[in-house]
Amino acid sequence: MSFSQKLAAEGLGTALLLATVVGSGIMGETLSPQNSGVALLANTIPTGAILYVLITIFGPISGAHFNPAVTLAFYLRNEIEFKQTLPYITVQILGGILGVLLANAMFDLSIIQISEKARASTGQGISEIVATFGLLLVIFGGLKHRANQVPMLVGLYITGAYWFTASTSFANPAVTIARMFSDTFAGIAPTSAPMFIICQLLGAALAVLVARTLFPKN
Amino acid sequence: MSFSQKLAAEGLGTALLLATVVGSGIMGETLSPQNSGVALLANTIPTGAILYVLITIFGPISGAHFNPAVTLAFYLRNEIEFKQTLPYITVQILGGILGVLLANAMFDLSIIQISEKARASTGQGISEIVATFGLLLVIFGGLKHRANQVPMLVGLYITGAYWFTASTSFANPAVTIARMFSDTFAGIAPTSAPMFIICQLLGAALAVLVARTLFPKN
Amino acid sequence: MSFSQKLAAEGLGTALLLATVVGSGIMGETLSPQNSGVALLANTIPTGAILYVLITIFGPISGAHFNPAVTLAFYLRNEIEFKQTLPYITVQILGGILGVLLANAMFDLSIIQISEKARASTGQGISEIVATFGLLLVIFGGLKHRANQVPMLVGLYITGAYWFTASTSFANPAVTIARMFSDTFAGIAPTSAPMFIICQLLGAALAVLVARTLFPKN
Amino acid sequence: MSFSQKLAAEGLGTALLLATVVGSGIMGETLSPQNSGVALLANTIPTGAILYVLITIFGPISGAHFNPAVTLAFYLRNEIEFKQTLPYITVQILGGILGVLLANAMFDLSIIQISEKARASTGQGISEIVATFGLLLVIFGGLKHRANQVPMLVGLYITGAYWFTASTSFANPAVTIARMFSDTFAGIAPTSAPMFIICQLLGAALAVLVARTLFPKN
Repeated sequence: MSFSQKLAAEGLGTALLLATVVGSGIMGETLSPQNSGVALLANTIPTGAILYVLITIFGPISGAHFNPAVTLAFYLRNEIEFKQTLPYITVQILGGILGVLLANAMFDLSIIQISEKARASTGQGISEIVATFGLLLVIFGGLKHRANQVPMLVGLYITGAYWFTASTSFANPAVTIARMFSDTFAGIAPTSAPMFIICQLLGAALAVLVARTLFPKN
Repeated sequence: MSFSQKLAAEGLGTALLLATVVGSGIMGETLSPQNSGVALLANTIPTGAILYVLITIFGPISGAHFNPAVTLAFYLRNEIEFKQTLPYITVQILGGILGVLLANAMFDLSIIQISEKARASTGQGISEIVATFGLLLVIFGGLKHRANQVPMLVGLYITGAYWFTASTSFANPAVTIARMFSDTFAGIAPTSAPMFIICQLLGAALAVLVARTLFPKN
Repeated sequence: MSFSQKLAAEGLGTALLLATVVGSGIMGETLSPQNSGVALLANTIPTGAILYVLITIFGPISGAHFNPAVTLAFYLRNEIEFKQTLPYITVQILGGILGVLLANAMFDLSIIQISEKARASTGQGISEIVATFGLLLVIFGGLKHRANQVPMLVGLYITGAYWFTASTSFANPAVTIARMFSDTFAGIAPTSAPMFIICQLLGAALAVLVARTLFPKN
Repeated sequence: MSFSQKLAAEGLGTALLLATVVGSGIMGETLSPQNSGVALLANTIPTGAILYVLITIFGPISGAHFNPAVTLAFYLRNEIEFKQTLPYITVQILGGILGVLLANAMFDLSIIQISEKARASTGQGISEIVATFGLLLVIFGGLKHRANQVPMLVGLYITGAYWFTASTSFANPAVTIARMFSDTFAGIAPTSAPMFIICQLLGAALAVLVARTLFPKN
């Protein structure tokens, strides 16, 4: 695969992921405004399903990171070259933002929005550390033991993590940045984003350390 | 397989698909009239499940298109002969309509109905382009990289796409035509159908173009 | 495997299947009394999940029929001997009834109950024909093309069929008899059972005929 | 794998399992306080998903028991040495408690809590026998016939068992002990825990006996 094909896969995949996260959030909130549990199920099930799909079809092209924390973690494990890291992260962020704008357009909302939804509790910070730690552990463990099941592992991990964390597991800096651009169910206020991203990077670094012991590379 | 076996598989498969889409819509709406999120979950989960089932058992016979947009896209990629295209599309449409009538009969409703449900917003048009583009990208990518997982890929893609698009992802001209014949949760008014079909064909054509770069045939 | 091992697997499997169908019905109805859609989801998801589990672990022993309509259909296809048919059906019925009594016990209800829930509409009769026809088609098609996926195929078929039929797809005479013994969400009045069973056998016979053309044995 | 790696996998896996069970219970109860069926779905789906994930990534290291009843049953079948049994059980219990404390922290609750939720009916005792019997039967049957599907089998078995038992299937002494430490949806009062654990061990012993006949070791 050429590097431009890899970047196209990362950008398109992250765009479709964010269209799913934000679009299903809008649909769930619209259909079940008085039952947030149903709205979050309606956000969870599509996100898990689409992650399985996107990682399966784009994984063989780019590795299907869709996530700067994943790209950086692979860099720390010497599984991606430094010079590829920044372009990967750039297209992930741009693709994610485009996906959110697309979701806004599909639901006939203002295309450019800024979320006012504060997500700033201590528990949400801890949640993002745990969520990203778990995500990377699952990726490393899956790649070591059952590489062909990574798409299902990530899809089902996120399905679970939406619910067991107080932050609904963003676990992804590109997702965090993109979700600032929709003032809906899945949004996050710009003032809350930096803490989320810092916690995500901490969780990722922790996973890299633990994986050295539990999932050493062959 | 003989060509008549292929046509039987396409017709029977599309009929069972539409019976599922419309039947589960009626059941969901009946059981949860005041919680549309639950009704749409009840529409989504069975549709995704049955797509996996039908593509698994009929795929080895006919390819399990069940969708004129898929048949036309395969024709553009030289994967089906021209003379087979029209018969495929014909049985898909007829099978789909029969499936809807069967659903109406199972729920003791008038067998022949015409939907009055307008689906005509700009966002719904964009949604159908995105939904069909994504569906075909998933099929092309799946066939290239993980052919044995196409049934699960399509089932889970549609599970997601029901929620992240404002149109609940018809993504299929035969489905669109058939759903005119049920004035229930899953119906679509005949006046809204042409825009849906045009947008679906646009999305399919776009996917064929993108797939030339991302998923070239071996 | 000895024949007594096969009978033990059929009886135990059918018991656990019915404990699941009736138990999850009671739990769903208890937790969401005013939202029947949630109760039916709570009945559907466990039933589909347990079918996958039971067919996977008992299939290699007995074939995991758990269903007289399946056993009779295999007899019509010369895939089980006549003298095995009646013992199979007997343990399926007894196992099913025991499973229902166990569910009643687990939920601290009277252990012996008779359902008063009439299920007698024309649409429900049509539904049982369609549901059983589809179930057997899925089994025959799965065995022919993807034998190792039959557990998932049956689990997901029933997940869908619960919703797209007006009868919630009993599709099984042993299940129908057993469900007479619980006056709860999943029950069926004894007066409604004969029509259900006749329709199930009709659907099975129809599937045997169609499968001769679409899924001929190798 | 070294024994300390095995213990780390058992401890970390049980911690993440309990964080999921308790965290998703808190989230579900918070979002759908008046629809307990939705809250239990929100507890069920993540738990099943995470079990699949944890057993897939930690199974190749430690066997992924996460459950003293499983460890003891394997000891009875001579599949784990006696001297490993107690350390396994110890880290399972400690890991489980830490996971619950982590869930409490993520949701900004008091980190140390004691549940006041009595679970003491006869039906709940029967339920724990049935739930643990079924769990171990699934593990033994899966290991014998489809070892690579054990993660999915256990995940989907528990998805079903949450609903068909009146106790929501703890089926695990470490889980029972840990869930005393959260006074939320998933909690259990310390006075109810001993009966649960005794019933779980009875169910496990029964499964070992039945498995000698149905799933003899090769």
